[in-house]
Amino acid sequence: MKIDINCDMGESFGVYRIGEDEKIIRYVSSANIACGFHAGDPQVIERTIALAKSNGVAVGAHPGYPDLIGFGRRNLETFPGEIRSLVLYQIGAFSAFARAAGCEIQHVKPHGALYNHAAKNEAAAAEIIDAVKSFDPDLVLYALAGSLCAEMALDAGLKVAQEAFPDRAYTRDGRLASRKLEGGLIRDPQKIRERVLRMAKTGKIISIEGEEISVRADTLCVHGDTPGAWELAKAIRDSLEEAGVEVSPIGRR
Amino acid sequence: MKIDINCDMGESFGVYRIGEDEKIIRYVSSANIACGFHAGDPQVIERTIALAKSNGVAVGAHPGYPDLIGFGRRNLETFPGEIRSLVLYQIGAFSAFARAAGCEIQHVKPHGALYNHAAKNEAAAAEIIDAVKSFDPDLVLYALAGSLCAEMALDAGLKVAQEAFPDRAYTRDGRLASRKLEGGLIRDPQKIRERVLRMAKTGKIISIEGEEISVRADTLCVHGDTPGAWELAKAIRDSLEEAGVEVSPIGRR
Amino acid sequence: MKIDINCDMGESFGVYRIGEDEKIIRYVSSANIACGFHAGDPQVIERTIALAKSNGVAVGAHPGYPDLIGFGRRNLETFPGEIRSLVLYQIGAFSAFARAAGCEIQHVKPHGALYNHAAKNEAAAAEIIDAVKSFDPDLVLYALAGSLCAEMALDAGLKVAQEAFPDRAYTRDGRLASRKLEGGLIRDPQKIRERVLRMAKTGKIISIEGEEISVRADTLCVHGDTPGAWELAKAIRDSLEEAGVEVSPIGRR
Amino acid sequence: MKIDINCDMGESFGVYRIGEDEKIIRYVSSANIACGFHAGDPQVIERTIALAKSNGVAVGAHPGYPDLIGFGRRNLETFPGEIRSLVLYQIGAFSAFARAAGCEIQHVKPHGALYNHAAKNEAAAAEIIDAVKSFDPDLVLYALAGSLCAEMALDAGLKVAQEAFPDRAYTRDGRLASRKLEGGLIRDPQKIRERVLRMAKTGKIISIEGEEISVRADTLCVHGDTPGAWELAKAIRDSLEEAGVEVSPIGRR
Repeated sequence: MKIDINCDMGESFGVYRIGEDEKIIRYVSSANIACGFHAGDPQVIERTIALAKSNGVAVGAHPGYPDLIGFGRRNLETFPGEIRSLVLYQIGAFSAFARAAGCEIQHVKPHGALYNHAAKNEAAAAEIIDAVKSFDPDLVLYALAGSLCAEMALDAGLKVAQEAFPDRAYTRDGRLASRKLEGGLIRDPQKIRERVLRMAKTGKIISIEGEEISVRADTLCVHGDTPGAWELAKAIRDSLEEAGVEVSPIGRR
Repeated sequence: MKIDINCDMGESFGVYRIGEDEKIIRYVSSANIACGFHAGDPQVIERTIALAKSNGVAVGAHPGYPDLIGFGRRNLETFPGEIRSLVLYQIGAFSAFARAAGCEIQHVKPHGALYNHAAKNEAAAAEIIDAVKSFDPDLVLYALAGSLCAEMALDAGLKVAQEAFPDRAYTRDGRLASRKLEGGLIRDPQKIRERVLRMAKTGKIISIEGEEISVRADTLCVHGDTPGAWELAKAIRDSLEEAGVEVSPIGRR
Repeated sequence: MKIDINCDMGESFGVYRIGEDEKIIRYVSSANIACGFHAGDPQVIERTIALAKSNGVAVGAHPGYPDLIGFGRRNLETFPGEIRSLVLYQIGAFSAFARAAGCEIQHVKPHGALYNHAAKNEAAAAEIIDAVKSFDPDLVLYALAGSLCAEMALDAGLKVAQEAFPDRAYTRDGRLASRKLEGGLIRDPQKIRERVLRMAKTGKIISIEGEEISVRADTLCVHGDTPGAWELAKAIRDSLEEAGVEVSPIGRR
Repeated sequence: MKIDINCDMGESFGVYRIGEDEKIIRYVSSANIACGFHAGDPQVIERTIALAKSNGVAVGAHPGYPDLIGFGRRNLETFPGEIRSLVLYQIGAFSAFARAAGCEIQHVKPHGALYNHAAKNEAAAAEIIDAVKSFDPDLVLYALAGSLCAEMALDAGLKVAQEAFPDRAYTRDGRLASRKLEGGLIRDPQKIRERVLRMAKTGKIISIEGEEISVRADTLCVHGDTPGAWELAKAIRDSLEEAGVEVSPIGRR
């Protein structure tokens, strides 16, 4: 039994620091590296790829909306074809540093509002999928487990990593429950560990309504931009390994 | 006998239009396409590559300083390693569109202030050369003929296109004369045609002091951002072809 | 009888030129000057204020979303209070150049997507109104005639210029008909002149359904970013003046 | 005996946090607030003005080069008149928030590379002085004590706050010694306190060569972007007050 743990990284910008990449990198198997639009800058990309490489962590491009001030968490109206162009641009920029470092790109994971938009919006998903396929059809697309984007990417022949969120509640139909609901965000590390183990071993989880539901999880997302995030990542990884689940990258198609 | 004609293209941004790319593309053999830092945006890059491809024109990345308001024509102080990172980022971003279009990148030509800075500054030239080699050692670097950057790139094993400027005067030691000098900028199309022919056929030119000097020209730069620029490009190309000089791209190493 | 003619100006950016401000300024009475977020830059603001002043044209701040690539024509999701802050920032920046030029600011007109959003969205309208009042309660707010924003601004005690669009069709309930409808955009200069005259003299217009409706128009918007826009502006002004309608600025409260 | 203590503030941007404004504000008398070009954003400006106001601290605009990635610490080549425009734009933007908060602007202090450039470069100093005077001739300009900019501003009739740096060594001719020299940067809090006291009470300081020199200090700059900066600010203020020196804002002309 195997599972991947991924984390957003490389989100610093100029003198501005965010995240504890050096600590958290030790507990994940895949790094989603910001590409300079919602976070990150060319020198940060370079350093973050080097950090991932030296820790044996697989790297992926983490493109977002061009919205540094909103950290890519807000929806922007886009022109037709623009999402495809934004994603292609960022994957390409990222790829240059991966190539210079002798590092293969494993995956692409859209960031924040772009990720959420593509999970439900057909046109956005289609543009992202087109961008990834045009750049390299062997790249893995990270997508919300069971989402429209995940389905469309599979239909388009991409390898997809179905992504689950250990610290988020799910509704009985397998969707993410709103963070604003009571219990929507899970903060108790012990509970998170239990959920992770159940997901990894049985593919099941208890929904916010209290029913057991299926959640396919090829990869688990841990968040890196809160203080102490690395401790949660460590707890998740330790639990999995103690239970005999191997933590390792998805791997290209 | 062969020579390349290159022109900066893809300099529009959003609703802002610059240049007459559709007209001038018919008379050049290589297009230097802005990468979104000093000009251009993701959708403009895409369109410009398509335009070049459909006209059989070779494409190159045209990275510049991140200075849209100054159009990349101003010097910026940079951190050590930053020029390399900026150039890598832009080549990579550009390459994604070339790849999606099934188009090979022929060359890299730094833009404006970055080009001029690298012509004389060893650290800047070294960073640009390192970026190009790290990305793809078979790319051609366009550099001011006889400049420090051209020499260093050759020493580093890159293929170099020595570039000459038909509408600029040269001093007797082979450098570009200042535009501000009387006669520094040549505007008479007939004179420009004569200079081009002499350069292409004999490798010589009359300096601003009136002496015959050698100017190696693998590629001639025509400017695209002035009204009527395409007519000058046409005149240059016609002159060369009438004289039996073939106009064709440099070609990768 | 009096009416104001307004036009967006100062939309150039760095080397990028848009609009024919020098020509169109002769036919308008109020200039909405871009503030550097969706268009314009500090030096362009300065030049445009000088141009307006020397032509006796009243000036207003024309704040927009921070979206140069989309020219402020796309909706952006915003944080609570952010629209107020964006508008305050831009009015303030603009005011510094007005003050340096010894020029009083007459009005504020939000641009593009921000204008359209505020016409219908209560929170956005409230933030804009709050920004204007906080800066200077004697400023005039330009708003779509009869819109929610216009009503709210009046309730808040601001002086409002109800704005009409001579080249746009209206529905029978007094709203702008979509540009995409047949007849939604009026291109025939003769028709536009007739509409303008009717609006100015009777406050009536023929709706897209063919019925006579009321449209209050304190100010008429002419567009400056299409080639030949100045000719339409001239035609409108000439028609009005021939009919004895005085074209003059709204004037501060 | 009185002296002012100033500190750069409001340097956060979007989700990116820098500085400990809430702590350090208690020990300074004047706050230099970033205006969104090298740091800060509209909502940060607003919050920082509110913070200063509620602590009885005087506020000033802190304009910088448009270089978020370099935090305004790098020289940019500028067009003639551009520095004036950049400074006017930023003072104006800042002033809108001050006005909305019912807060008078006390001063303008250029940031980083712009401050250093203006200390020695006549054209840059002249453009800054012109911007300040055009906006409001009663504003105080903060400038390096004894610098060209300080002298020019006095000649132009501005009120100038001569600024000294307690943690920087001075050469015998009264200039700042390079940070790179041994002893150029003073880190020992006890030494800093002694220097501050001597400066405030006698206008003298021991130069890096060991000689007593005069340093006029109307205002002392403390740095806020290093961890624990507030403790140094507190130590400086306590020393001054224990010695009977009142810490209070400069005050407008």
